[in-house]
Amino acid sequence: MSKLINRQFQLASRPAGEPEVANFKLVETAVADLTDGQVLLRNHYLSLDPYMRWRMNDAKSYAAPQALNEVMVGGTVGEVVASKSPLFKVGDTVRGGGGWQLYRMFEAAQLGLLQKVDTTRIPLSAYLGAVGMPGVTAWYGLVKIIHPKAGETVVVSAASGAVGSVVGQLAKARGARVVGIAGGADKCRYVVDELGFDACIDYKGGRLVEDLKAATPGGVDVYFDNVGGPILDAVLGRMNPFSRLPLCGLISQYNATEAYGVKNFRSILVNRIRVQGFIVFDFQSDYREAMGELAGWLAAGQLRYRETIAQGLRAAPAAFVGMLRGDNLGKQLVKLA
Amino acid sequence: MSKLINRQFQLASRPAGEPEVANFKLVETAVADLTDGQVLLRNHYLSLDPYMRWRMNDAKSYAAPQALNEVMVGGTVGEVVASKSPLFKVGDTVRGGGGWQLYRMFEAAQLGLLQKVDTTRIPLSAYLGAVGMPGVTAWYGLVKIIHPKAGETVVVSAASGAVGSVVGQLAKARGARVVGIAGGADKCRYVVDELGFDACIDYKGGRLVEDLKAATPGGVDVYFDNVGGPILDAVLGRMNPFSRLPLCGLISQYNATEAYGVKNFRSILVNRIRVQGFIVFDFQSDYREAMGELAGWLAAGQLRYRETIAQGLRAAPAAFVGMLRGDNLGKQLVKLA
Repeated sequence: MSKLINRQFQLASRPAGEPEVANFKLVETAVADLTDGQVLLRNHYLSLDPYMRWRMNDAKSYAAPQALNEVMVGGTVGEVVASKSPLFKVGDTVRGGGGWQLYRMFEAAQLGLLQKVDTTRIPLSAYLGAVGMPGVTAWYGLVKIIHPKAGETVVVSAASGAVGSVVGQLAKARGARVVGIAGGADKCRYVVDELGFDACIDYKGGRLVEDLKAATPGGVDVYFDNVGGPILDAVLGRMNPFSRLPLCGLISQYNATEAYGVKNFRSILVNRIRVQGFIVFDFQSDYREAMGELAGWLAAGQLRYRETIAQGLRAAPAAFVGMLRGDNLGKQLVKLA
Repeated sequence: MSKLINRQFQLASRPAGEPEVANFKLVETAVADLTDGQVLLRNHYLSLDPYMRWRMNDAKSYAAPQALNEVMVGGTVGEVVASKSPLFKVGDTVRGGGGWQLYRMFEAAQLGLLQKVDTTRIPLSAYLGAVGMPGVTAWYGLVKIIHPKAGETVVVSAASGAVGSVVGQLAKARGARVVGIAGGADKCRYVVDELGFDACIDYKGGRLVEDLKAATPGGVDVYFDNVGGPILDAVLGRMNPFSRLPLCGLISQYNATEAYGVKNFRSILVNRIRVQGFIVFDFQSDYREAMGELAGWLAAGQLRYRETIAQGLRAAPAAFVGMLRGDNLGKQLVKLA
């Protein structure tokens, strides 16, 4: 065990608006020898997620803010490389919150954060995407909140992303007509041609309202929103009576220094819309069921996904900044080993 | 029957922003003799309601716009003064949509719009307020959507109004801590001293955010919103995790020529709020149950209300304009007979 070196990114300063690479600092420390009950995880992939930007603010939210001068919190998958616990052995592949670093030591009391994953049928990295937190988020919104019915029109924003891509495929499998919204022609082609959505609107095309109207001739029964902002307003204008709006994210607002005012709130009343904010972390008890279903579909080739992979820990800050600008296609990961 | 003269207000022009008396025109017509199956209603009280302002716009909503040069639609209570139907006899006291006029003729096929009401225990006018559509609206929001639990904090806007006053009393009866929001010290005194709310915030006092914080030290579990706008934003800032927000009205927006942008939409996500728009007209099947409960409470002295009564049909337009400015206390009525 001796003389392993850990490298990690800590939050050096809180961004105002768009984050910068300089908000993070790289720190090196020696990995201590294990004591009884401890497990050492070598992270292979780090997940970069929009929620991280929110936690970089010093504001009340569903989770405590990311602390300054501490390792950036984040989901990872990797391999147990040392263990003094009967629960894990060297070589186990696991999913857990390993953070923006090469190694994480888990105390005995923290081992509930680690789950063994089967990589014989599913690639390890997928446990951070389609079969991981983003996939479970999509599953929860669809299966537990929305129950889309055959023939309904489901609109999904950030449709090419890790959550949106699963939402659309699940809704499609339930017989819904699925319309994605994404930024750019490439993403839209991917959403329609590879993911099988019925249509995709490029919100950067400058004709959002018109394109949305054309793509939803029967109005919108479900809007799975990941972004908020003007796209939310546009879709609110197309909602049908008694429609549903699971609110999963507000990506357009995470870098905002002034909140966007939602002008079409009136539609919630006029159309008796049910809006339900939700955070996947609330539903740990459903993880096993959700991951099982998602893994089955993925192994059977019924759940498609893409990854954008940055190489090496040092690339993480720039990849994160780029993800918030929408530079990635599909799940944004950092390969650490 | 012969030679009865009906007087009615028709919509002469659609208002831009605040309505004016000149948007209405008074029209006189003779009342025709009855033919088989018809019933003639003499309106005693006309209900003036905020939703009417919305219908004066030529915009898509949950109901068709109020037609130009036709009688203004509205709820009334009154007495059957002529009948050629076996379903109603002269002298029956009824509730129904009699409109802004002295008389309304109901065809046989329209008689489902008329309900006989018992005035031995309940004053006739109350069937337009606490035991009428506003009361049922409150009942529906509380009993069917919200289910407030003992000890929860329920905030109600337009608290002195026909809906808000019932919401607060129902929530109080279920053991909730109830905080009203109303415009002016007189209304707030009424809300606390007569209706029994635990507290009331005068939003015209210039300290809405601070006063709301002081009045809800444990945050807000339910916000029953009748008004929208900046008050909605302020309350969103106080919502607790897993709180509920029945959206019943957006009175602050009915005269607006530009929609207010809701800036605190983020709270819906962060706090996993359930927002549910609803319109009482969707739930006709629950009217009987709701009215029965409300009538029982009112007859037992457990449901208090006030009325502001304008005298005579000619007073209706000015009373309507004033109601939208908040000049009334409690239910705004027009006495027609």
